[in-house]
Amino acid sequence: MKSINLKKKLASQWFRSLRNQICDEFEKLEKKISNSKIKFSKTKWKKSKSKSEGGGEICILRNGKIFEKVGVNISEVSGTFDKNFKKKIPGTEKSSKFWASGISLVAHFQNPNIPSLHFNTRFIATSKHWFGGGMDVTPCIPDKKQKKYFHNELKNTCDLHNKKYYKIHKLNCDQYFFLPHRNEARGDGGIFYDYLNTNNWEKDFLYTKDVGLVFLKIAKNIIQKKMSQKWTEKEKIKQLEKRARYVEFNLLFDRGTKFGLATGGNIDAIFMSLPPLASW
Amino acid sequence: MKSINLKKKLASQWFRSLRNQICDEFEKLEKKISNSKIKFSKTKWKKSKSKSEGGGEICILRNGKIFEKVGVNISEVSGTFDKNFKKKIPGTEKSSKFWASGISLVAHFQNPNIPSLHFNTRFIATSKHWFGGGMDVTPCIPDKKQKKYFHNELKNTCDLHNKKYYKIHKLNCDQYFFLPHRNEARGDGGIFYDYLNTNNWEKDFLYTKDVGLVFLKIAKNIIQKKMSQKWTEKEKIKQLEKRARYVEFNLLFDRGTKFGLATGGNIDAIFMSLPPLASW
Repeated sequence: MKSINLKKKLASQWFRSLRNQICDEFEKLEKKISNSKIKFSKTKWKKSKSKSEGGGEICILRNGKIFEKVGVNISEVSGTFDKNFKKKIPGTEKSSKFWASGISLVAHFQNPNIPSLHFNTRFIATSKHWFGGGMDVTPCIPDKKQKKYFHNELKNTCDLHNKKYYKIHKLNCDQYFFLPHRNEARGDGGIFYDYLNTNNWEKDFLYTKDVGLVFLKIAKNIIQKKMSQKWTEKEKIKQLEKRARYVEFNLLFDRGTKFGLATGGNIDAIFMSLPPLASW
Repeated sequence: MKSINLKKKLASQWFRSLRNQICDEFEKLEKKISNSKIKFSKTKWKKSKSKSEGGGEICILRNGKIFEKVGVNISEVSGTFDKNFKKKIPGTEKSSKFWASGISLVAHFQNPNIPSLHFNTRFIATSKHWFGGGMDVTPCIPDKKQKKYFHNELKNTCDLHNKKYYKIHKLNCDQYFFLPHRNEARGDGGIFYDYLNTNNWEKDFLYTKDVGLVFLKIAKNIIQKKMSQKWTEKEKIKQLEKRARYVEFNLLFDRGTKFGLATGGNIDAIFMSLPPLASW
């Protein structure tokens, strides 16, 4: 059995390697459509406070022909949880120490036919350890065929690992990405899981890797299918209004945003997800 | 001494009459610059739930030559406070009943030289009653002369009523309109007051009226001075980024937004303040 330190190292390495792969593929898509050499710009940040340390890298590509704004963050931080916060976290009975590493991505597109994409996975260790993550898509123009394709891909990937995963992880996603003040779902849903530890680390890691890889497959597929579709000014306005709801969700309800702000996280990393342009 | 019912009636009438005056004057400004007959559109809403009733009117003008979006709400609602909420409200020891009426306004301009403007005043009654309100301005291009003019006008108005008001009400405003996650003030400040009851209702009402009238005076003055100034694309981008911080404040911290959403308020009225376009 692997030591916890080796597990941390392998998880971190994977998130970085996935980040590189995604950024490469997205830059290739930009090159394909416009022959431009538009690249992600990378910003590193470090955190060294009394209660936590570590850092991360923010990769952002703006004003592409396909991507209006896409951000991919990786981070590795450690520290001790606040008294109030630790009550909610498994494995903190004897020590409030934690370690966390992950990747998160949000993409907003020029073409309103392409849904906004959100994906993240993470590995967290206290005296216990677990994986979490998932993805969801937010179209502004409904597309039943795309929704079916998206959920089929997710189900196929989940089923490879556990026949119960898709149903449970889809339900988590539906419950979480919901705007109560508007009584509406954020988008077409997806899958989300947390506290995943089946006592088989290799297996859980493999699932988390597959979730990352199927995200990349789905993203490329949806983008390539739609990037050349025409759109109207009216559809672009609809997209900006839909993005306003994205902002509402992220600022009013998202646990990650709240946690980040409450613990003095990196503002640029936390707000990486916010759209390049939104309209109320 | 006036009965509480008469006080409520007079306050409500004032908010409505001020709303009419402001909308008239703003429409006149639009006509002056472009000879267009662009008008506010009015939406009425009603609320009739177990715990509260009443309603209001949302007046919005969009896509003017001067105003990119300006919303002016008036409302009159009554009901009973939730157990948790009433603890924070004076005069609710024996009964959780409340009555509230007010006017609120947020204006976002085409020209990035004109600051975003925010103003509101209200009269609230439980077994006690009080006035509250104020205004603040948020420039995206700093203008020391304008800031000085703005605060001078406020001080002069405050001083007519009580020599201590300006200092206290300015401090309230500075403390409230602050973005802790960015460690920055929202804008140039202004004045805000709450729970104002000096045992002289006429006097407090007069102050609240004067705050409304000086807002209109200041708004007209700033707009007329700047509406013909040229601006660059770069300044417009800066404005959209500054507006993003306006959204962050209103969704992450504003008490009015939180209260409105938690009590099932009218979404369009609550989000009237959000900008027509913002950029992250």
